[in-house]
Amino acid sequence: MRFFSDNAAACCPEVLAALGAANRLDTAYDGDGLSKRLDGAFSDLFGCEVRALWVATGTAANSLALAALCQPHQSIVCHRDAHIQNDEGGAPEFYTHGAKLLLAEGEGAKLTPDTVQALLATVRADVHQVQPAALSITNATEYGLVYTPDEVAALGALARERKLGFHMDGARFANAVARLGCHPADLTWRAGVDALSFGFVKNGGLSAEMLVFFRPELADATLYRRKRAGHLLSKGRYMAAQVLAMLEDDVWLRNARAANDGAARLAGAAGARLLLPVEANELFIRVTPEEAQRLRDQGFDFYDWGPGEARLVTSWDSDPAEVDALATAIAAL
Amino acid sequence: MRFFSDNAAACCPEVLAALGAANRLDTAYDGDGLSKRLDGAFSDLFGCEVRALWVATGTAANSLALAALCQPHQSIVCHRDAHIQNDEGGAPEFYTHGAKLLLAEGEGAKLTPDTVQALLATVRADVHQVQPAALSITNATEYGLVYTPDEVAALGALARERKLGFHMDGARFANAVARLGCHPADLTWRAGVDALSFGFVKNGGLSAEMLVFFRPELADATLYRRKRAGHLLSKGRYMAAQVLAMLEDDVWLRNARAANDGAARLAGAAGARLLLPVEANELFIRVTPEEAQRLRDQGFDFYDWGPGEARLVTSWDSDPAEVDALATAIAAL
Amino acid sequence: MRFFSDNAAACCPEVLAALGAANRLDTAYDGDGLSKRLDGAFSDLFGCEVRALWVATGTAANSLALAALCQPHQSIVCHRDAHIQNDEGGAPEFYTHGAKLLLAEGEGAKLTPDTVQALLATVRADVHQVQPAALSITNATEYGLVYTPDEVAALGALARERKLGFHMDGARFANAVARLGCHPADLTWRAGVDALSFGFVKNGGLSAEMLVFFRPELADATLYRRKRAGHLLSKGRYMAAQVLAMLEDDVWLRNARAANDGAARLAGAAGARLLLPVEANELFIRVTPEEAQRLRDQGFDFYDWGPGEARLVTSWDSDPAEVDALATAIAAL
Amino acid sequence: MRFFSDNAAACCPEVLAALGAANRLDTAYDGDGLSKRLDGAFSDLFGCEVRALWVATGTAANSLALAALCQPHQSIVCHRDAHIQNDEGGAPEFYTHGAKLLLAEGEGAKLTPDTVQALLATVRADVHQVQPAALSITNATEYGLVYTPDEVAALGALARERKLGFHMDGARFANAVARLGCHPADLTWRAGVDALSFGFVKNGGLSAEMLVFFRPELADATLYRRKRAGHLLSKGRYMAAQVLAMLEDDVWLRNARAANDGAARLAGAAGARLLLPVEANELFIRVTPEEAQRLRDQGFDFYDWGPGEARLVTSWDSDPAEVDALATAIAAL
Repeated sequence: MRFFSDNAAACCPEVLAALGAANRLDTAYDGDGLSKRLDGAFSDLFGCEVRALWVATGTAANSLALAALCQPHQSIVCHRDAHIQNDEGGAPEFYTHGAKLLLAEGEGAKLTPDTVQALLATVRADVHQVQPAALSITNATEYGLVYTPDEVAALGALARERKLGFHMDGARFANAVARLGCHPADLTWRAGVDALSFGFVKNGGLSAEMLVFFRPELADATLYRRKRAGHLLSKGRYMAAQVLAMLEDDVWLRNARAANDGAARLAGAAGARLLLPVEANELFIRVTPEEAQRLRDQGFDFYDWGPGEARLVTSWDSDPAEVDALATAIAAL
Repeated sequence: MRFFSDNAAACCPEVLAALGAANRLDTAYDGDGLSKRLDGAFSDLFGCEVRALWVATGTAANSLALAALCQPHQSIVCHRDAHIQNDEGGAPEFYTHGAKLLLAEGEGAKLTPDTVQALLATVRADVHQVQPAALSITNATEYGLVYTPDEVAALGALARERKLGFHMDGARFANAVARLGCHPADLTWRAGVDALSFGFVKNGGLSAEMLVFFRPELADATLYRRKRAGHLLSKGRYMAAQVLAMLEDDVWLRNARAANDGAARLAGAAGARLLLPVEANELFIRVTPEEAQRLRDQGFDFYDWGPGEARLVTSWDSDPAEVDALATAIAAL
Repeated sequence: MRFFSDNAAACCPEVLAALGAANRLDTAYDGDGLSKRLDGAFSDLFGCEVRALWVATGTAANSLALAALCQPHQSIVCHRDAHIQNDEGGAPEFYTHGAKLLLAEGEGAKLTPDTVQALLATVRADVHQVQPAALSITNATEYGLVYTPDEVAALGALARERKLGFHMDGARFANAVARLGCHPADLTWRAGVDALSFGFVKNGGLSAEMLVFFRPELADATLYRRKRAGHLLSKGRYMAAQVLAMLEDDVWLRNARAANDGAARLAGAAGARLLLPVEANELFIRVTPEEAQRLRDQGFDFYDWGPGEARLVTSWDSDPAEVDALATAIAAL
Repeated sequence: MRFFSDNAAACCPEVLAALGAANRLDTAYDGDGLSKRLDGAFSDLFGCEVRALWVATGTAANSLALAALCQPHQSIVCHRDAHIQNDEGGAPEFYTHGAKLLLAEGEGAKLTPDTVQALLATVRADVHQVQPAALSITNATEYGLVYTPDEVAALGALARERKLGFHMDGARFANAVARLGCHPADLTWRAGVDALSFGFVKNGGLSAEMLVFFRPELADATLYRRKRAGHLLSKGRYMAAQVLAMLEDDVWLRNARAANDGAARLAGAAGARLLLPVEANELFIRVTPEEAQRLRDQGFDFYDWGPGEARLVTSWDSDPAEVDALATAIAAL
């Protein structure tokens, strides 16, 4: 019974079926009929004109977005615990040719206008210091918190005022939207977001992640950068097929709700053990090493997260019976 | 009836079946059971200890190989018509951080020790000039020719003598092996090749290409570079599954033979129109614009290749009836 | 008696005197009184508003100019024999983060609209190929030829039409102006040049080269790139002092004329041995190995330039007696 | 009366005299007679075989050292207040092609084995995180403190244990040696340092900084990187001349002692206002805005250093009368 990562989950049946349906001769790269539908499909979803590009990983989506918003001699403001800082092997530095990440603070990996401004205030406006050009947040955050539309908009207003491009790492964007029940536009372009890494793989996809530009002109150079990074797959139809299948009938939202529901069920059982509110599909709980062992002895697998802490992740296909079993086990600790 | 690219082909049924079979919870990234079998599977295939990494494109495989063999301040010798020079959007320069490509000559995009030596002779050994560190060839070449084991070995000997790492772009390696009937080892490590981009996608795969290191230590840093380039997919099991399915029962060879057979059939019909011998699955033929139009009017699709020339490509799933029809149409021109 | 490089020459007395005069406490980096005069001094010289930055080498000037005109995923058109291609150790690739150099043809390292267009015609406008963004020429060329204002303007018109930034490597710009007797503006911004590497070191300077932007806005990011490249010297006053001293009373032109005169004197003696017309301060002549040895035995030092060829370079401080002696020796061969 | 930077100081007379003495024809780049003496001169100074390269700035020296010790996909441990992190415009990221700086803690910008180990403990040894490859310290530090030989050796032992290359930014290395009265070897290779940026410009030089490798083989690729960065000046003799003049008769030590003495004189006057001990040529003192204004009204110029704090810097040529005047003024506050 695995609760250590939504990356461990299988693909949802709609995705596999779409791969089969796409399995025919078509134009190579992104010239196929399915890939050509993406701009339209995401423009419909977001209610504005967007450009939407598939790539093979969220790391590539994030890094291409940052390269579109930040010159090599500039810098990107993000949270100290951001995935782009800690878990992408330096990909942002690679794609931006060495831009710096400037690290801001905030509870639960969430930035606020105050913490961003405090960081910006430390940068002198001279050539000896790397000047900020972009702001990047993660929604849902690395600690499973969710930025509301108002919170995003407050950061978006600051970004505009300071002339920073605004990127959202949405590896778990679906979980955030599912939690908030808002329109996807409210969390993105209406709140000032320029580029969104829209995650599909953790949420039931196989290998396709999306990079969505709300300023369509940013896509022009990105198409070249994607090719240059080796992310223009030769049989792109299979990338588009996965994503279109998950947009259809809101599979992406249904999957995210299922994952969130599992986490909420566990949160109820964890009670005072919770380190942070549970707003998406991740829980961080206090457990002694002995308690952690007791859970593992019952067949539950998860990551330790520092001394006396554990991370539990649910996914679109978490078995309700297994979730119940874990909830019971946690309550019984 | 499309003959313009093997990238346009569908996936073979073994690949799709393998995706379905792999569709279950497993460890993320390359920690899954299937990915862990790759080193062993390719070591068995090549008869020596190798390291084998999946990536999403041949461009990434080539570029990672070159980054392992060449420092940013060095250069790579390749053919003037090499894919890495002309068709990868500058990916080798991106991954190597600006290494130069030095362009050598040779009929049919094939290098020889003589043309490589002629190029090397133009480089002064001082800091003002970028010093060569690697040699890269494509087998089968961009013009559908095949290097024999002896030809590769001659270049390998030169590479060793000049202390150049030796890379083979094997986007159509399967077609070369199928043509030659040799052991894969004879075309690679026995001939001095250090790193092979082993193509699966054109040959019936969906999205997985392989990078094989015959000097296993080269993989160590490459694992980091792969992550940094955004090519460490989070559900790697679906990458490994495709490749393992094509290794099993030599599907890769069977597919390549089918593609080569189609091209040979067309070559027989093309006769004196051939610009070059047909040794793999590509033909380059002389056709007037009117003749090209006549073929298109009959439903055959292909690329023009300069004035009065056309490129025809067969693939693993080329319909024999369509191949026959095209052969007849060419003969009738 | 050295004729192998104008880099071997000493500094002119005005430069050394200026260093002494500047030897006092002043603001660091480029905040000193002398550095602040550069924009004005060069705007006066060129008769338009420019931004003028010192750097320590022509390589840095060229590379910063190219980085201002070309994105990492784009390319730069230059001559096959250009210094930026052959003699800067890959600096353009370093500063541009891996842009490609596309190599065009032309007699005496001189491009023409025809040869540039022929090269541009080989580039497909798709993401698989690196798209040209800049054109770079050298005046005087690597073979000592001089582009006239009309020739530069013809290339400038082509650059504008194809939306290419236009850079001039003017390591020997002074020699070109001295030869042509034109206004510096005629060779640069009036002919469409966006950025000029204006060489001072070969022409009597000690360590300061200039990068002049005729589109002033290009300087903004370049100031950051210069710092990032380690070319913002902490005692910039000594850089500016050299250059201002050479602008005063047209020392730069007088020095260049002296060098050109020496070369013209040798050219007269060389006659039919000349491989190319002598238009600046370099000669390329035919000499057998025995003849070359005979010259060396008389104390003349110079570079061989391929089989049966030699390069002779005069400089601002070439001793007329030594030039005469060499002229006599050549005539006597 | 300027106390805001040692970069504002003039050059010492020995340096200017040496430029004049070097002002004759010589081989270009680093092939001249003076440049060729550098390896020997620094080997003598340090008592071991070293390679010593001039560059135009400390930023270039630091960045080339880091590029020699750290791959693009790796990281460098330094202090949060290090010059390489805050004041070099991202040059380390440029030269290393995007390596990350990992920021450790320590009083007065001084690292300790404990703070370095605490930082290293946060890095997981997997491909998702950028692995440390180098340790960089500044001696004297950005806050004017000095690492003793024992302190350096303790960090050197840790570096060796963790397989980190060890770099010392010695922009004020002379001040540290002058303070400690130790042999330069004790602060460097005997303590495990692999590469030293040895500053000459702040200490009386004009434009030449040195990069010294105690592992001579590191120089091989660095010679190419220096050229590629545009730091191989064409008239290198004037670089070497400056440095050799300052090595002769220990001018470098004498100058540093003069600067340190000035600072010590001021420290005595500052007493309880000192934020940190004064060990080199920088003081950080507590002053109210009114007090700072009072000093400025008396003609003293210096930097504010955060609220209620000021930085005062003495240099090799600080006028003892001005130092006395400032000391008196501070005491009188």
